[in-house]
Amino acid sequence: MIKAMLSALLVLVALSSTFGKYIPKTGRRTPQTLSRGWGDQLIWAQTYEEGLYWSRSRNKPLMVIFHLKDCPHSQALKKTVADDTEFQRTLDEDFIVLNLMYETTDKHLSPDGQYVPRIIFVDPSMTVRADITGRYANRMYAYEPSDIKILLDNMKKAKKLLKSEL
Amino acid sequence: MIKAMLSALLVLVALSSTFGKYIPKTGRRTPQTLSRGWGDQLIWAQTYEEGLYWSRSRNKPLMVIFHLKDCPHSQALKKTVADDTEFQRTLDEDFIVLNLMYETTDKHLSPDGQYVPRIIFVDPSMTVRADITGRYANRMYAYEPSDIKILLDNMKKAKKLLKSEL
Repeated sequence: MIKAMLSALLVLVALSSTFGKYIPKTGRRTPQTLSRGWGDQLIWAQTYEEGLYWSRSRNKPLMVIFHLKDCPHSQALKKTVADDTEFQRTLDEDFIVLNLMYETTDKHLSPDGQYVPRIIFVDPSMTVRADITGRYANRMYAYEPSDIKILLDNMKKAKKLLKSEL
Repeated sequence: MIKAMLSALLVLVALSSTFGKYIPKTGRRTPQTLSRGWGDQLIWAQTYEEGLYWSRSRNKPLMVIFHLKDCPHSQALKKTVADDTEFQRTLDEDFIVLNLMYETTDKHLSPDGQYVPRIIFVDPSMTVRADITGRYANRMYAYEPSDIKILLDNMKKAKKLLKSEL
Protein backbone atom coordinates (compact mmCIF):
# COMPACT_ATOMS: atom_id res chain seq x y z
CA MET A 1 0.00 0.00 0.00
CA ILE A 2 2.70 2.45 1.02
CA LYS A 3 4.68 1.36 -2.04
CA ALA A 4 1.70 2.07 -4.31
CA MET A 5 1.24 5.50 -2.76
CA LEU A 6 4.92 6.27 -3.18
CA SER A 7 4.75 5.28 -6.86
CA ALA A 8 1.71 7.46 -7.36
CA LEU A 9 3.53 10.32 -5.65
CA LEU A 10 6.56 9.83 -7.88
CA VAL A 11 4.38 9.91 -10.99
CA LEU A 12 2.72 13.10 -9.73
CA VAL A 13 6.07 14.75 -9.05
CA ALA A 14 7.33 13.73 -12.50
CA LEU A 15 4.17 15.07 -14.14
CA SER A 16 4.16 18.34 -12.26
CA SER A 17 7.78 19.01 -13.18
CA THR A 18 7.09 18.77 -16.93
CA PHE A 19 3.42 19.65 -17.24
CA GLY A 20 2.78 23.08 -18.68
CA LYS A 21 6.43 24.02 -18.93
CA TYR A 22 7.53 25.89 -22.01
CA ILE A 23 9.41 23.80 -24.57
CA PRO A 24 10.76 25.59 -27.68
CA LYS A 25 9.51 24.45 -31.11
CA THR A 26 13.02 23.28 -31.91
CA GLY A 27 12.99 20.97 -28.88
CA ARG A 28 14.17 21.05 -25.30
CA ARG A 29 17.45 22.89 -24.73
CA THR A 30 20.19 22.22 -22.21
CA PRO A 31 20.20 25.18 -19.79
CA GLN A 32 23.16 27.50 -20.37
CA THR A 33 25.85 27.50 -17.70
CA LEU A 34 27.77 30.56 -16.64
CA SER A 35 31.02 28.54 -16.65
CA ARG A 36 30.63 27.85 -20.39
CA GLY A 37 32.95 24.87 -19.92
CA TRP A 38 35.77 26.69 -18.09
CA GLY A 39 35.06 24.94 -14.78
CA ASP A 40 31.57 23.99 -13.62
CA GLN A 41 32.59 23.97 -9.95
CA LEU A 42 33.84 27.56 -9.90
CA ILE A 43 31.67 30.52 -8.92
CA TRP A 44 31.62 32.78 -11.97
CA ALA A 45 30.80 36.47 -12.05
CA GLN A 46 28.27 37.30 -14.76
CA THR A 47 29.54 40.77 -15.62
CA TYR A 48 32.71 42.83 -15.26
CA GLU A 49 30.94 45.09 -12.74
CA GLU A 50 30.07 42.05 -10.62
CA GLY A 51 33.65 40.73 -10.89
CA LEU A 52 35.09 44.07 -9.77
CA TYR A 53 32.69 44.22 -6.83
CA TRP A 54 33.65 40.74 -5.61
CA SER A 55 37.34 41.39 -6.20
CA ARG A 56 37.23 44.52 -4.04
CA SER A 57 35.06 43.09 -1.30
CA ARG A 58 36.95 39.77 -1.00
CA ASN A 59 40.38 41.26 -1.73
CA LYS A 60 41.15 38.69 -4.42
CA PRO A 61 42.47 39.37 -7.91
CA LEU A 62 40.01 39.08 -10.79
CA MET A 63 40.86 36.89 -13.79
CA VAL A 64 38.96 37.80 -16.97
CA ILE A 65 38.97 35.26 -19.80
CA PHE A 66 37.84 36.48 -23.23
CA HIS A 67 36.96 33.60 -25.53
CA LEU A 68 34.70 32.54 -28.39
CA LYS A 69 32.69 29.37 -28.84
CA ASP A 70 33.86 28.68 -32.37
CA CYS A 71 37.53 29.57 -31.85
CA PRO A 72 39.72 26.42 -31.74
CA HIS A 73 42.43 28.21 -29.70
CA SER A 74 39.82 29.20 -27.10
CA GLN A 75 38.49 25.63 -27.01
CA ALA A 76 41.96 24.12 -26.57
CA LEU A 77 42.84 26.52 -23.74
CA LYS A 78 39.46 25.91 -22.10
CA LYS A 79 40.00 22.15 -22.06
CA THR A 80 43.46 22.58 -20.51
CA VAL A 81 42.14 24.95 -17.82
CA ALA A 82 39.00 22.91 -17.05
CA ASP A 83 40.82 19.56 -16.82
CA ASP A 84 43.62 20.77 -14.53
CA THR A 85 42.54 20.09 -10.93
CA GLU A 86 45.24 22.23 -9.32
CA PHE A 87 44.52 25.10 -11.68
CA GLN A 88 40.82 24.90 -10.85
CA ARG A 89 41.56 24.78 -7.11
CA THR A 90 43.74 27.91 -7.32
CA LEU A 91 41.08 29.75 -9.33
CA ASP A 92 38.39 28.73 -6.85
CA GLU A 93 40.31 29.62 -3.70
CA ASP A 94 42.41 32.63 -4.71
CA PHE A 95 40.65 34.36 -7.60
CA ILE A 96 37.41 35.94 -8.72
CA VAL A 97 36.66 34.52 -12.16
CA LEU A 98 34.80 35.89 -15.16
CA ASN A 99 34.59 34.49 -18.68
CA LEU A 100 33.21 36.69 -21.44
CA MET A 101 32.27 36.05 -25.07
CA TYR A 102 31.61 39.73 -25.74
CA GLU A 103 33.87 42.73 -25.20
CA THR A 104 32.93 45.23 -22.53
CA THR A 105 32.95 48.98 -23.09
CA ASP A 106 35.99 49.30 -20.80
CA LYS A 107 39.06 49.82 -23.00
CA HIS A 108 41.42 48.99 -20.15
CA LEU A 109 40.52 45.34 -20.73
CA SER A 110 42.06 45.40 -24.21
CA PRO A 111 45.53 46.98 -23.70
CA ASP A 112 46.79 45.68 -27.08
CA GLY A 113 43.55 45.00 -28.91
CA GLN A 114 40.54 42.72 -28.83
CA TYR A 115 41.33 39.08 -29.61
CA VAL A 116 40.63 35.65 -28.14
CA PRO A 117 41.67 33.82 -26.13
CA ARG A 118 42.89 36.67 -23.94
CA ILE A 119 43.41 36.66 -20.18
CA ILE A 120 43.56 39.88 -18.19
CA PHE A 121 44.19 40.14 -14.46
CA VAL A 122 42.70 42.94 -12.39
CA ASP A 123 43.96 43.88 -8.93
CA PRO A 124 41.41 44.39 -6.11
CA SER A 125 42.41 48.07 -6.25
CA MET A 126 40.61 47.99 -9.66
CA THR A 127 43.89 48.37 -11.55
CA VAL A 128 44.21 46.30 -14.73
CA ARG A 129 47.49 44.39 -14.45
CA ALA A 130 48.71 45.22 -17.98
CA ASP A 131 52.17 44.21 -16.72
CA ILE A 132 51.19 40.53 -16.47
CA THR A 133 51.76 39.20 -19.98
CA GLY A 134 52.26 35.90 -21.78
CA ARG A 135 54.96 35.08 -24.32
CA TYR A 136 53.66 36.62 -27.55
CA ALA A 137 54.90 40.12 -28.39
CA ASN A 138 52.01 40.93 -30.72
CA ARG A 139 49.25 39.45 -28.54
CA MET A 140 50.59 39.96 -25.06
CA TYR A 141 47.59 38.51 -23.19
CA ALA A 142 47.11 35.38 -25.34
CA TYR A 143 47.92 31.90 -24.05
CA GLU A 144 48.18 28.54 -25.81
CA PRO A 145 47.56 25.27 -23.93
CA SER A 146 51.37 24.77 -23.89
CA ASP A 147 51.71 28.09 -22.00
CA ILE A 148 49.93 26.76 -18.92
CA LYS A 149 53.13 27.03 -16.85
CA ILE A 150 53.48 30.72 -17.78
CA LEU A 151 49.82 31.28 -16.95
CA LEU A 152 50.29 29.66 -13.51
CA ASP A 153 53.34 31.90 -12.90
CA ASN A 154 51.26 34.91 -13.92
CA MET A 155 48.55 33.88 -11.46
CA LYS A 156 51.21 33.92 -8.73
CA LYS A 157 52.18 37.45 -9.83
CA ALA A 158 48.53 38.54 -9.73
CA LYS A 159 48.19 37.14 -6.20
CA LYS A 160 50.88 39.61 -5.07
CA LEU A 161 48.45 42.48 -4.71
CA LEU A 162 49.38 46.05 -5.55
CA LYS A 163 50.14 48.24 -2.59
CA SER A 164 47.66 51.06 -2.48
CA GLU A 165 49.06 54.55 -2.04
CA LEU A 166 48.82 55.99 1.43
CA MET B 1 30.54 -11.15 -24.19
CA ILE B 2 29.45 -7.94 -25.91
CA LYS B 3 27.31 -7.16 -22.86
CA ALA B 4 30.31 -7.57 -20.56
CA MET B 5 32.41 -5.29 -22.74
CA LEU B 6 29.66 -2.70 -22.81
CA SER B 7 29.42 -2.78 -19.01
CA ALA B 8 33.19 -2.39 -18.71
CA LEU B 9 33.03 0.53 -21.13
CA LEU B 10 30.23 2.15 -19.13
CA VAL B 11 32.25 1.82 -15.92
CA LEU B 12 35.27 3.34 -17.66
CA VAL B 13 33.20 6.26 -18.97
CA ALA B 14 31.72 6.81 -15.51
CA LEU B 15 35.17 6.71 -13.91
CA SER B 16 36.78 9.04 -16.46
CA SER B 17 34.04 11.60 -15.99
CA THR B 18 34.68 11.92 -12.27
CA PHE B 19 38.30 10.90 -11.84
CA GLY B 20 40.66 13.78 -11.20
CA LYS B 21 37.99 16.46 -11.50
CA TYR B 22 38.17 19.36 -9.07
CA ILE B 23 35.70 19.23 -6.21
CA PRO B 24 35.63 22.18 -3.77
CA LYS B 25 36.39 21.51 -0.08
CA THR B 26 32.83 22.48 0.74
CA GLY B 27 31.50 19.77 -1.59
CA ARG B 28 30.27 19.51 -5.15
CA ARG B 29 28.29 22.52 -6.38
CA THR B 30 25.42 22.67 -8.84
CA PRO B 31 26.74 24.50 -11.92
CA GLN B 32 25.36 28.07 -12.16
CA THR B 33 22.85 28.71 -14.92
CA LEU B 34 22.63 31.92 -16.87
CA SER B 35 18.83 31.86 -16.57
CA ARG B 36 19.05 32.06 -12.75
CA GLY B 37 15.56 30.62 -12.62
CA TRP B 38 13.89 33.08 -15.04
CA GLY B 39 13.40 30.40 -17.72
CA ASP B 40 15.87 27.58 -18.34
CA GLN B 41 14.72 27.13 -21.95
CA LEU B 42 15.42 30.72 -23.00
CA ILE B 43 18.69 31.84 -24.56
CA TRP B 44 20.07 34.47 -22.20
CA ALA B 45 22.62 37.14 -23.02
CA GLN B 46 25.41 37.28 -20.43
CA THR B 47 26.09 41.01 -20.59
CA TYR B 48 24.35 44.21 -21.70
CA GLU B 49 26.83 44.54 -24.58
CA GLU B 50 25.93 41.05 -25.78
CA GLY B 51 22.20 41.79 -25.43
CA LEU B 52 22.52 45.00 -27.46
CA TYR B 53 24.47 43.17 -30.17
CA TRP B 54 21.82 40.44 -30.50
CA SER B 55 18.99 42.98 -30.37
CA ARG B 56 20.49 44.96 -33.25
CA SER B 57 21.46 41.98 -35.37
CA ARG B 58 18.16 40.11 -34.94
CA ASN B 59 15.99 43.24 -34.86
CA LYS B 60 14.24 42.17 -31.66
CA PRO B 61 13.68 44.29 -28.55
CA LEU B 62 15.87 43.56 -25.53
CA MET B 63 14.27 42.94 -22.14
CA VAL B 64 16.57 43.58 -19.18
CA ILE B 65 15.50 42.19 -15.80
CA PHE B 66 17.31 43.52 -12.74
CA HIS B 67 16.83 41.28 -9.72
CA LEU B 68 18.45 40.03 -6.53
CA LYS B 69 18.66 36.51 -5.15
CA ASP B 70 17.53 37.41 -1.64
CA CYS B 71 14.77 39.84 -2.63
CA PRO B 72 11.31 38.30 -2.08
CA HIS B 73 9.71 40.62 -4.68
CA SER B 74 12.27 39.46 -7.26
CA GLN B 75 11.63 35.82 -6.34
CA ALA B 76 7.86 36.19 -6.62
CA LEU B 77 8.08 37.89 -10.02
CA LYS B 78 10.59 35.28 -11.20
CA LYS B 79 8.24 32.43 -10.33
CA THR B 80 5.37 34.11 -12.17
CA VAL B 81 7.49 34.72 -15.27
CA ALA B 82 9.14 31.28 -15.28
CA ASP B 83 5.90 29.34 -14.78
CA ASP B 84 3.91 31.14 -17.50
CA THR B 85 4.24 29.12 -20.71
CA GLU B 86 2.86 31.83 -23.00
CA PHE B 87 5.08 34.45 -21.40
CA GLN B 88 8.12 32.23 -21.90
CA ARG B 89 7.16 31.54 -25.53
CA THR B 90 6.84 35.28 -26.28
CA LEU B 91 10.19 35.99 -24.63
CA ASP B 92 11.85 33.17 -26.57
CA GLU B 93 10.42 34.06 -29.95
CA ASP B 94 10.16 37.84 -29.92
CA PHE B 95 12.74 39.15 -27.44
CA ILE B 96 16.40 39.12 -26.55
CA VAL B 97 16.59 38.48 -22.81
CA LEU B 98 19.09 39.46 -20.15
CA ASN B 99 18.84 39.10 -16.38
CA LEU B 100 21.32 40.94 -14.18
CA MET B 101 22.06 40.86 -10.47
CA TYR B 102 24.50 43.78 -10.73
CA GLU B 103 24.00 47.23 -12.16
CA THR B 104 25.87 48.16 -15.33
CA THR B 105 27.77 51.42 -15.75
CA ASP B 106 25.13 52.60 -18.24
CA LYS B 107 22.90 55.13 -16.48
CA HIS B 108 20.22 54.88 -19.16
CA LEU B 109 19.24 51.57 -17.58
CA SER B 110 18.17 53.29 -14.37
CA PRO B 111 15.92 56.16 -15.50
CA ASP B 112 14.42 56.59 -12.01
CA GLY B 113 17.02 54.89 -9.85
CA GLN B 114 18.48 51.48 -9.11
CA TYR B 115 16.06 49.06 -7.50
CA VAL B 116 14.87 45.49 -7.97
CA PRO B 117 12.90 43.98 -9.51
CA ARG B 118 13.11 46.37 -12.44
CA ILE B 119 12.38 45.66 -16.10
CA ILE B 120 13.71 47.90 -18.86
CA PHE B 121 13.03 47.46 -22.56
CA VAL B 122 15.57 48.52 -25.17
CA ASP B 123 14.69 49.04 -28.84
CA PRO B 124 16.97 47.45 -31.50
CA SER B 125 17.93 51.04 -32.38
CA MET B 126 19.68 50.95 -28.96
CA THR B 127 17.18 53.38 -27.46
CA VAL B 128 16.11 52.65 -23.89
CA ARG B 129 12.30 52.62 -23.88
CA ALA B 130 11.91 54.82 -20.78
CA ASP B 131 8.31 55.40 -21.99
CA ILE B 132 7.31 51.79 -21.21
CA THR B 133 6.42 51.86 -17.54
CA GLY B 134 4.47 49.84 -14.98
CA ARG B 135 1.91 51.13 -12.51
CA TYR B 136 4.00 52.60 -9.69
CA ALA B 137 4.72 56.33 -9.88
CA ASN B 138 7.79 56.18 -7.65
CA ARG B 139 9.28 53.02 -9.17
CA MET B 140 8.16 53.21 -12.73
CA TYR B 141 9.89 50.05 -13.96
CA ALA B 142 8.92 47.76 -11.06
CA TYR B 143 6.38 44.95 -11.46
CA GLU B 144 4.62 42.75 -8.93
CA PRO B 145 3.40 39.24 -9.84
CA SER B 146 -0.14 40.69 -10.02
CA ASP B 147 1.08 43.13 -12.71
CA ILE B 148 1.74 40.37 -15.23
CA LYS B 149 -1.04 41.66 -17.51
CA ILE B 150 0.57 45.13 -17.59
CA LEU B 151 3.94 43.54 -18.28
CA LEU B 152 2.48 41.57 -21.20
CA ASP B 153 0.91 44.77 -22.59
CA ASN B 154 4.29 46.51 -22.23
CA MET B 155 5.94 43.67 -24.15
CA LYS B 156 3.47 44.31 -26.97
CA LYS B 157 4.46 48.01 -26.90
CA ALA B 158 8.15 47.08 -27.02
CA LYS B 159 7.51 44.85 -30.04
CA LYS B 160 6.34 47.93 -31.95
CA LEU B 161 9.83 49.02 -32.87
CA LEU B 162 10.85 52.66 -33.04
CA LYS B 163 11.05 54.11 -36.51
CA SER B 164 14.59 55.19 -37.15
CA GLU B 165 15.07 58.69 -38.54
CA LEU B 166 15.76 58.88 -42.26
